[in-house]
Order: sequence, then structure tokens, then C-alpha cells
Amino acid sequence: MQFTSEVVEQAVEALSGFPGIGRRTALRLVMHLLKRPDVEVARMAEALLKLKTDLHFCRICNNVSDGELCQVCSNPSRDASLVCVVEDFSDQMAIESTGQYRGVYHVLGGLISPMDGIGPEDIHLQALLDRVQQGGIQEVIMAFSATVEGDTTMYYLARKLKDSAVKTSCIARGIAVGGEIEYADEITLARSLQQRTPYSV
Amino acid sequence: MQFTSEVVEQAVEALSGFPGIGRRTALRLVMHLLKRPDVEVARMAEALLKLKTDLHFCRICNNVSDGELCQVCSNPSRDASLVCVVEDFSDQMAIESTGQYRGVYHVLGGLISPMDGIGPEDIHLQALLDRVQQGGIQEVIMAFSATVEGDTTMYYLARKLKDSAVKTSCIARGIAVGGEIEYADEITLARSLQQRTPYSV
Repeated sequence: MQFTSEVVEQAVEALSGFPGIGRRTALRLVMHLLKRPDVEVARMAEALLKLKTDLHFCRICNNVSDGELCQVCSNPSRDASLVCVVEDFSDQMAIESTGQYRGVYHVLGGLISPMDGIGPEDIHLQALLDRVQQGGIQEVIMAFSATVEGDTTMYYLARKLKDSAVKTSCIARGIAVGGEIEYADEITLARSLQQRTPYSV
Repeated sequence: MQFTSEVVEQAVEALSGFPGIGRRTALRLVMHLLKRPDVEVARMAEALLKLKTDLHFCRICNNVSDGELCQVCSNPSRDASLVCVVEDFSDQMAIESTGQYRGVYHVLGGLISPMDGIGPEDIHLQALLDRVQQGGIQEVIMAFSATVEGDTTMYYLARKLKDSAVKTSCIARGIAVGGEIEYADEITLARSLQQRTPYSV
């Protein structure tokens, strides 16, 4: 691309650093910004800067937070004996959006991935084991994506918690609500048969 | 979406203002930023702010520029008697990238679009007519996209320049280089036959 302005080029370079955004898309975003009022661009820049200056991580569960404790950990009506372990805060948000979960969370900030050189010490696993050690936790629910990394982390964590008094569980795998059986993959379908639940009227 | 942090929410809101970026994608971008070094986020915020503070528009052609004149208008080796009119600076960049054009440009910053309430006075058309009035221009090439807005603007501009001494032309429409005839739409194919060019060996 031939840029006639260094300012535009720098903005395109910066935005094309985002995952899934190439230089052409970045140029389109820059053109959009040029047409927006100054105050809107200033607000966007400030919002991005605040991610690094004003954002904290909860002292207990490592979730993103505006203060020392996140909204869940500081809520006395949540069941602190039930901990749901997730990979990242987007997973926590997804679970929180169901409105069904009344326990607390633990955000690992990643999964064990030997292929990428990420070991147990690179994610917030020890902090979770420390929480369990301190007592008061009865069950640890592991809610990871069904990937090699998710399974590896699940296995490692379950092994680590084996000798403690806490119960470990993992979220159910099966046919999605609204999903059609004929289009389900074999592994999911097999798992949904294996883990069938009692049904009576 | 249930946000546990206002800082994250504000960043997601800001980024989802971009065209084609929804709240889910914005959240993914924010998660990416959280994992990047502080200095990179600061550089991005600065690059966006600079779009509003350090960016100028060329006094002659209205193209984005770092100074009062853009790189093309301030280059004495460019043919100032040949003006290529484009909708936006991304079109100018595309033409400049061909490396074939030695004339100068005029960036309208939009096209006439009665449907969207954009009239000739809302784009930089008068500035172009003033440039023609001042003399020194021999030909105006209209390089607009083949849309209703492009055709409308082309018609309006050609009418306005009809009584002046300048020649008006528009870029050729036809089968793309590498394009296959059987997949071309009828209008393009008809146009490419109509506007056939002499070929001899």
C-alpha cells in the first residue's frame, strides 16, 4: 500500500496488530475514524489506555475487575464453596450470562499447552490450589473448551486435587439445545449417550 | 453480555463502534490488548489520537496529508494538468499503487447520494470546479466505483465541466485482467464489447 500520510500509516499499522484485522480492514477502520467527531476518537483512545492503567485483577479469582475484588467475589450472596474454573474472562462472562450459576469463579488466564510451551506455572493454577488449601471450597467445576489444551488442564488439575477433600466435576458434553442429532459429530453423540441423564414423567 | 469490569465494557463499547465489528469481536480484541505490553497499547491509542490532531488535508487536492500539501501535489515531476477525481483517499492509494499514473488527484471525500441526503455541496466538488476555473488543467479523469452514486456524481461533474475547456473521461469498465468471460455479468460484458480497443500485431 502506498500511503500519502505517515499519520494514517501509523494508525493502520497499529490497528492491523489486532487478530483477524489485516491492513485493508485497518485502512477501512481508519477511514471510519476520520469521519467521526474528535471526541469519539479521544474517548476510544482513552478507553484503550484505561485497559492498562485502570484495570485490576481480582485478588481472589484473578478475573478482570475495577477494584481489588471483582463483583462476584465481593458479593456475599454468592456461594463461595462452589468454584467454577475457566480459561479466560470471556468464558466467565458467558457462564455469568446464563444467570443460572450462583457460585464463584477462578480465571486461569490460559490453559496448559505443551505445544506452545505453556506449563502449569505459566497460568494461575497455583493460586487455585492455594484457595483449595485454605479450605471452605467443596466443589471445583472445570469449564474448559473441549480441546487438547482443555483436556490436559482438566487432567492436571483433577490429579492435583485428587488427595484433597474437594469434589471435582466438569461441564456436560452433549448435543446442543436445538442441535440436530443427524448433524452431531460422532464423539459428541457417543459422549451424550454415555452420559445420558434419567428422564421420567 | 455481563461485564464484571466497567473498564472492559467501555473498551468493548468503543471498539464495537467500528463498522463490521460487533460486541463479541470487540471483546476478543480487548482480550488481545490485555495480553499485549503496555507500550503497544499506548502506541495504538496515540496513533488513533494523532488522526485527529496531526492529520491535515492537502490544500489543493483534499487528500490526507502530513503537511499543507500532500506528497503528490508537492511533487514537481507530477503532471498537474491531469487530474484524477476519486471518492476517497483509499481509492487514491489504490491508483497510486499501480505506479502507472503520473498526474495529480482530487479527493471528493464522498459521492453524491440523494438517497442518503448527500448533495454536491456536501462533498469537495466546488473546490475541484475552482481548480478547473483557475486554469492549467487539461483533463479530468473520473475514477468512481460503478455504483448509482458513482454514476450520479460522474453525470453531475461532467455537466458542470461541459462548457469549460477541459476534457472529461472516466476509467474503462470491462472484464478484469485474469477474469473469465463466462462468469462476467451481462452489463460488464456488454460494456467491454461496446468499448472494445483496437488490437493489431
